[in-house]
Amino acid sequence: MESGATAEQIEHMAEAVRRLGLRASVIEGTERTVIAAIGEKRADMMESLASGPGVAAVMPIAAPYKLASREVRPDPSCVRVGEFAAGAGAVGVIAGPCSVESEEQIMSAARAVKAAGATALRGGAFKPRTSPYSFQGMKEEGLKLMAAAREETGLAVVTEVMGTDDVELVARYADVLQVGARNMQNYRLLEAVGGAGRPVLLKRGPSATMDEFLLAAEYILNEGNDQLMLCERGIRTFEGHTRFTLPLASISYLHRKTHLPVVIDPSHGTGHTYMVPDLAYAAIAAGADGLMVEVHPSPETALSDGYQSLDFAGFEAMMARCRRVAEAVDQELVGSTVPAS
Amino acid sequence: MESGATAEQIEHMAEAVRRLGLRASVIEGTERTVIAAIGEKRADMMESLASGPGVAAVMPIAAPYKLASREVRPDPSCVRVGEFAAGAGAVGVIAGPCSVESEEQIMSAARAVKAAGATALRGGAFKPRTSPYSFQGMKEEGLKLMAAAREETGLAVVTEVMGTDDVELVARYADVLQVGARNMQNYRLLEAVGGAGRPVLLKRGPSATMDEFLLAAEYILNEGNDQLMLCERGIRTFEGHTRFTLPLASISYLHRKTHLPVVIDPSHGTGHTYMVPDLAYAAIAAGADGLMVEVHPSPETALSDGYQSLDFAGFEAMMARCRRVAEAVDQELVGSTVPAS
Amino acid sequence: MESGATAEQIEHMAEAVRRLGLRASVIEGTERTVIAAIGEKRADMMESLASGPGVAAVMPIAAPYKLASREVRPDPSCVRVGEFAAGAGAVGVIAGPCSVESEEQIMSAARAVKAAGATALRGGAFKPRTSPYSFQGMKEEGLKLMAAAREETGLAVVTEVMGTDDVELVARYADVLQVGARNMQNYRLLEAVGGAGRPVLLKRGPSATMDEFLLAAEYILNEGNDQLMLCERGIRTFEGHTRFTLPLASISYLHRKTHLPVVIDPSHGTGHTYMVPDLAYAAIAAGADGLMVEVHPSPETALSDGYQSLDFAGFEAMMARCRRVAEAVDQELVGSTVPAS
Amino acid sequence: MESGATAEQIEHMAEAVRRLGLRASVIEGTERTVIAAIGEKRADMMESLASGPGVAAVMPIAAPYKLASREVRPDPSCVRVGEFAAGAGAVGVIAGPCSVESEEQIMSAARAVKAAGATALRGGAFKPRTSPYSFQGMKEEGLKLMAAAREETGLAVVTEVMGTDDVELVARYADVLQVGARNMQNYRLLEAVGGAGRPVLLKRGPSATMDEFLLAAEYILNEGNDQLMLCERGIRTFEGHTRFTLPLASISYLHRKTHLPVVIDPSHGTGHTYMVPDLAYAAIAAGADGLMVEVHPSPETALSDGYQSLDFAGFEAMMARCRRVAEAVDQELVGSTVPAS
Repeated sequence: MESGATAEQIEHMAEAVRRLGLRASVIEGTERTVIAAIGEKRADMMESLASGPGVAAVMPIAAPYKLASREVRPDPSCVRVGEFAAGAGAVGVIAGPCSVESEEQIMSAARAVKAAGATALRGGAFKPRTSPYSFQGMKEEGLKLMAAAREETGLAVVTEVMGTDDVELVARYADVLQVGARNMQNYRLLEAVGGAGRPVLLKRGPSATMDEFLLAAEYILNEGNDQLMLCERGIRTFEGHTRFTLPLASISYLHRKTHLPVVIDPSHGTGHTYMVPDLAYAAIAAGADGLMVEVHPSPETALSDGYQSLDFAGFEAMMARCRRVAEAVDQELVGSTVPAS
Repeated sequence: MESGATAEQIEHMAEAVRRLGLRASVIEGTERTVIAAIGEKRADMMESLASGPGVAAVMPIAAPYKLASREVRPDPSCVRVGEFAAGAGAVGVIAGPCSVESEEQIMSAARAVKAAGATALRGGAFKPRTSPYSFQGMKEEGLKLMAAAREETGLAVVTEVMGTDDVELVARYADVLQVGARNMQNYRLLEAVGGAGRPVLLKRGPSATMDEFLLAAEYILNEGNDQLMLCERGIRTFEGHTRFTLPLASISYLHRKTHLPVVIDPSHGTGHTYMVPDLAYAAIAAGADGLMVEVHPSPETALSDGYQSLDFAGFEAMMARCRRVAEAVDQELVGSTVPAS
Repeated sequence: MESGATAEQIEHMAEAVRRLGLRASVIEGTERTVIAAIGEKRADMMESLASGPGVAAVMPIAAPYKLASREVRPDPSCVRVGEFAAGAGAVGVIAGPCSVESEEQIMSAARAVKAAGATALRGGAFKPRTSPYSFQGMKEEGLKLMAAAREETGLAVVTEVMGTDDVELVARYADVLQVGARNMQNYRLLEAVGGAGRPVLLKRGPSATMDEFLLAAEYILNEGNDQLMLCERGIRTFEGHTRFTLPLASISYLHRKTHLPVVIDPSHGTGHTYMVPDLAYAAIAAGADGLMVEVHPSPETALSDGYQSLDFAGFEAMMARCRRVAEAVDQELVGSTVPAS
Repeated sequence: MESGATAEQIEHMAEAVRRLGLRASVIEGTERTVIAAIGEKRADMMESLASGPGVAAVMPIAAPYKLASREVRPDPSCVRVGEFAAGAGAVGVIAGPCSVESEEQIMSAARAVKAAGATALRGGAFKPRTSPYSFQGMKEEGLKLMAAAREETGLAVVTEVMGTDDVELVARYADVLQVGARNMQNYRLLEAVGGAGRPVLLKRGPSATMDEFLLAAEYILNEGNDQLMLCERGIRTFEGHTRFTLPLASISYLHRKTHLPVVIDPSHGTGHTYMVPDLAYAAIAAGADGLMVEVHPSPETALSDGYQSLDFAGFEAMMARCRRVAEAVDQELVGSTVPAS
């Protein structure tokens, strides 16, 4: 309550709490009075109480998500698809081009990232582009090319789904459905991928709080799908020397609050090729369960995101050092024992 | 180019520009060399050039949007629906509850906001909620109640559409389709509302840059729909004493760059009832073409957003002062001549 | 406490609270337990308790500042210097160039802003510049020129003091000592200006929270100086189309929490001349007690901040409309009755 | 220039550029015209040109700092004090309590951090506190205790100096003068520490851009002091689950742009004890030249920052793993060969 709240206001609000089916405990302090509301609360309740007379603030005490929480599932979960695994000590690397551009491009990328130790292939077939005038992806043709690459290399296919109408089509070809940062709070899409029977990789929106991120995860888990990875790909801040600011403390926080595996995307998280390896090492050292990295046969001619893609040699060098860093922190880079021929 | 770029690198990049069908003009400075790329450029081109050898940065010179720009349409556009009008000197006020909760609630709100001078009614039937466990709206039943309120009061109905599957249904009842902040970059939805034959109100995402906002608008305009309003509802910053930070300079900027009307939402923009009137006056003084305000018969018992809703008396008092401020800056609050009985 | 806190941890922390001289009230909820600590608390205490075993969070209930608060002084205070007044219904306008550059420049600016209705003259003699290679101000010579301008026009002189060594010198010439945004948490300087016997204008740092801002004010008030104005000049956000983001909700918030007058700086707050008038009208409509505006005889040739300065005609036009907006919200622009000859 | 700029405006601005002593090169594009200004430019010039008629934007091409840049000094510099070294392959660890509180506290902390492999001791004697009512430090007494700790352990002493008046006193006892984040743009202080004849550790302000950070460094270097370390300690963003957001991409960026060593502070950068080790590993993996870590004999009873301090056992465990991570990325943790007895 406000420090000047009257006895009437305090009783009024305690009564309001009780009307909501909660128990009200009134604590009188030297400067102000606090009403503790005890019981099964809903966000709605907090909102309506906040506008009551004399109320200074309504503060939540329990986390608003359940299925994502450590309290419901104390041990870390692990998402596995073929050789790919992320979580519970396994570090999986997803690599490949921003967009699928041609058969030659995606096949050469798949072979190169496999040889360097990746266990999943990324590639966009449906591309969410800021401008309606930019390249929008190869669509189903792109999905087919990724499936062919899986056929040859055994890599799991991770690709983005942009709309509810595309979920079934994408799920036919892909192993993991990616929900992009722009769609993190597209609740219709979250429900649809939650029910699609495929593992999901959910990217954090660039201005999402951790509660919003975990509640978006909750939409997916709530459909009965527990094969879910969270991906930190950077937040929007005042910094202009990077495309986004990549907060690696997200790993520590999410590991404490949730059992879900945490994947880091240093490509979008920095927006500059030269920074990607440094942040990949940092992510693994901080305990990440996976990496998602843009790799292109020729970044200079890429149709999208060339400025943040590694070439094959750069990726191979990065993976070699990633293995050493993972060992230093007692994690295992799955698939990394495959020697680069 | 980087300051240490070699002559070979410079010639390489000038040639790369030419291969893209552009004209390359090389300017040698005392510290570094600039290559001006002249012609019809695409975002893709910038991205691929940025990763070239010796390139320091690629900077755009022309705006990436076209249909939204003043360069294509120099005069301000005005969106009109019944008595509601926003743009080109007219200031329209959209008011009503966050969510439609019952017939009594929405009818009483419609009558009250109409009497105070609003010309459009807001109300959520499909509610995007951060948590899957929160109230999700009355859905079609809510749309019917809003249509009934229009029947009696003549207010235009503004309501949010959350997914492509709902566009047709919502367009059957609503006068203006709202795209919420969380869906600002849900491109499938932008395309769908662009083709729905109804005026659209597009809310800015809380971390969207102005270029991203105007390119999202471009997705809608590109479907042939030019009845579009832009709504500033606050951005996410480090500030914790407001729900979002409401940047009114958006009005000046958007008026300079685009012909589209700009609506301000001081309810979401502040998150506190007591701040709403101050920011509403400020918005009108700064030249806003419209306001979107949450009004509820009983904010304290609202199922959502009660902490930022005005009650009827608060809204009426606010509107009286809004009229005076609009006059002071030579704008006209449409519908405001209706005397509050 | 964490939801899994043991009875031992709870008793341990309740005891820790008691050892700090506070009263501990333990409230057991369905999901977790809260310990309310009642009494005269210090920030230090919160910090040390937060690291105790099983502690989830320590949340403050009372505001950490006292002298700045409405609880200590319920009525708004007003700062007056000569004809200038800000607060308690009076709106004062401080205008002039970013830097004092020459006698002719400052005298012509003083005459022009006085004629248009300003009651105080701004001008930098000691300039905090981001780069050591930029123009650093005319120093004492600049102060003398401002004093001469006061002599002729009667305008109060407002100028920045950058270091403790300069306080006495600046106070000899100036009527109001300005603490710049970069020095908002330079506590040595705050103490020095607090004891200098002159009114102070304290600018908000671009990433300061409201509590940090008001605690910086508290450093000044704590030296016995109650002639203090708070100046909002914009915060640093991801937005790139303005120099800073100017949050006008600061006015509403500060008026609720503190008795101190609130001055808005739309010049630094936007960084673009064309936006300055719109935001000035908005600030007054939102209830600002003052404006601080950069005005230069020839913005194009200014040695600093030309891109955000108004010329004389622009300022005069702005002031005429400011007067109308102030009337519309029942505020009085002091000095504005002087007719522009 | 704006796309609608007239030939007169273009010629006017080209002439304005020439009057500033620069060479003007006019490039006519399909959509707009660019004027390249070539020569020794100053920030002032850019500002004044930006307000010219028809000007759309003035964009810098060369970095504004010189002495800090790789262009002036291509090889990385290393700061050495006794056994402590940071830069050019050496990783130095600075550890100790937030504030010096007593002889026993600082001596036990010094012994413990030395044993675990730190080579410098941190500890605040003059404390910049947000509130004037918080503990302000032991002042000279604290400095004496730190000097005694150096005497016994050989650790270099790093401590903050808050004001110009204290520089001489602090320099008498300390080996490295720290400029805190709040004072990053206190230019008087930067000049004073630049001339004090001691190595300096400059902390980044929580909303400082990289250019502002490097220009603050330039103020120090410009006084003839090249024994300078840059410290990233987190930026202010919308995130609430950490005290600040710690952007490790700063390491990659600063290593590319400047020769100065980069130290990371994971204690302030996260604000939570449990996150500190993860971010310390990440910092070293990303290439940091040093760490600055808060360690306290009993975090729970610390007078400041207890919630982000490690205890002795936590620090020792962290250092053991830091050594392994440093090896994995071919860096050397100096002093780390001292076996913890």
